[in-house]
Amino acid sequence: MIWCNGELYDQGPIPLDPADRGLLLGDGVFETIAVFHGRPFRLVQHLEALEDAAAALGFALPRATVERAVADLVAGLAGGHGALRITVTRGAGPRGLAPPAEPAPVVLATTAPWSEAMAFQPIRLATVSIRRNPTSPLSRIKSLAYLDNVLAFQAARAAGADDALMLNTEGRVASTSMANLFLLRDGRLLTPPVEDGVRPGIMRELLLACGAVEASLMPEDLAAGAVFATNSLRLLQPVTAIDGRASAPVPAEVIARLRAACGL
Amino acid sequence: MIWCNGELYDQGPIPLDPADRGLLLGDGVFETIAVFHGRPFRLVQHLEALEDAAAALGFALPRATVERAVADLVAGLAGGHGALRITVTRGAGPRGLAPPAEPAPVVLATTAPWSEAMAFQPIRLATVSIRRNPTSPLSRIKSLAYLDNVLAFQAARAAGADDALMLNTEGRVASTSMANLFLLRDGRLLTPPVEDGVRPGIMRELLLACGAVEASLMPEDLAAGAVFATNSLRLLQPVTAIDGRASAPVPAEVIARLRAACGL
Repeated sequence: MIWCNGELYDQGPIPLDPADRGLLLGDGVFETIAVFHGRPFRLVQHLEALEDAAAALGFALPRATVERAVADLVAGLAGGHGALRITVTRGAGPRGLAPPAEPAPVVLATTAPWSEAMAFQPIRLATVSIRRNPTSPLSRIKSLAYLDNVLAFQAARAAGADDALMLNTEGRVASTSMANLFLLRDGRLLTPPVEDGVRPGIMRELLLACGAVEASLMPEDLAAGAVFATNSLRLLQPVTAIDGRASAPVPAEVIARLRAACGL
Repeated sequence: MIWCNGELYDQGPIPLDPADRGLLLGDGVFETIAVFHGRPFRLVQHLEALEDAAAALGFALPRATVERAVADLVAGLAGGHGALRITVTRGAGPRGLAPPAEPAPVVLATTAPWSEAMAFQPIRLATVSIRRNPTSPLSRIKSLAYLDNVLAFQAARAAGADDALMLNTEGRVASTSMANLFLLRDGRLLTPPVEDGVRPGIMRELLLACGAVEASLMPEDLAAGAVFATNSLRLLQPVTAIDGRASAPVPAEVIARLRAACGL
């Protein structure tokens, strides 16, 4: 189902201003939210992330509109599971890079099927040459300028892996193309800090609240323990190999605890 | 005027698939072309740049469609000047980062007024904290993931300047948020190499063909001569100050020669 600026559509197309800066410049933000049993998981945190991301770009999130989109789409799921994506562009602007003084953001939200088969799937990672750039605020938010992640994902697939191991420009571990990374070593759960070019994803925040700690990691550190990736739809993905070398298995109780936290 | 997938529109909106990857992920490319006296300047070079950019993302540019868009829009300019922007997205795709196996690219092209008053305007630069990332192919093409440039531009404006001086992640000079940079020193014209995170713009290529040479530059090098920026619509912009320090004037004959090369 599609929700765009207050209208519901069974299918596309949607009407879009050809001067929309989301389309022309990647000038916008998004969030992807799992709906479990008809309830958006960690909705408040996702909306705050969206609000923070818009603020980083210099515009105010039309929060009431976004909340209406979520409510309308979740109602359409009728108590079932779903994957909700909320896209907010800065709206139309004059030619060039300068944003309009009074932006009129566009809200586009869609739902797609979600089932537990999408989650907890093991993945193999391949290190890619595209690095995350901590000097850019975009390394810390989900913006529509997501193409580096697409290219990193494509490169990992071309290398026979399922996702990319992305380092930052200083050579430290950052994330996959779509998920935060965790290392379980000697009973401690470590994840790279935001300053290393990492987006503070909602699942990552949940694990930090449960005792995980931030620590810069070098690629070779990942050989010292079990590694997994977290993402709002795929939840927890055990990493089984990095660049063809097998990784230690992720303990079953870690997965069981996250499943329980999601109410699944 | 607006051209989208074969249809002409006086004004928006245009119909767009809500799964369009250009809108959702910045997954697409663009070029901006000046039309002088009804003739697109360096059209072949711009189309080749667009083709190379699409190839860098892994899809084939629908070149015949793009050429039709250009012809239709240029006809509408009736021999006058104009600014033509061609946007090509990878088209719609399934949920997630993986591109569709057989993309159906979307071509959106628009014209806007152009007058010589837009060109040859002096600019002041401010160094910004966002750096260009040479590990990403996106540093070398015009992709729809253009948001770093928007943020760099905003930061420069907030600092009281007209545009940003962007360094790369290694601290070398790259470009402004929208233009290539040249240093005229001891009679030699120098511009940073593509490897330093620079897009090979069409005006830059023209100056390289006329004897400019590629050389990595450190920010302090820019104090040693006259500095200017080149861009397909603004043509040549003399830099009058960098971070509040006055720059040497750009010789009038440099500007006169570029104006002549454009047939203006």
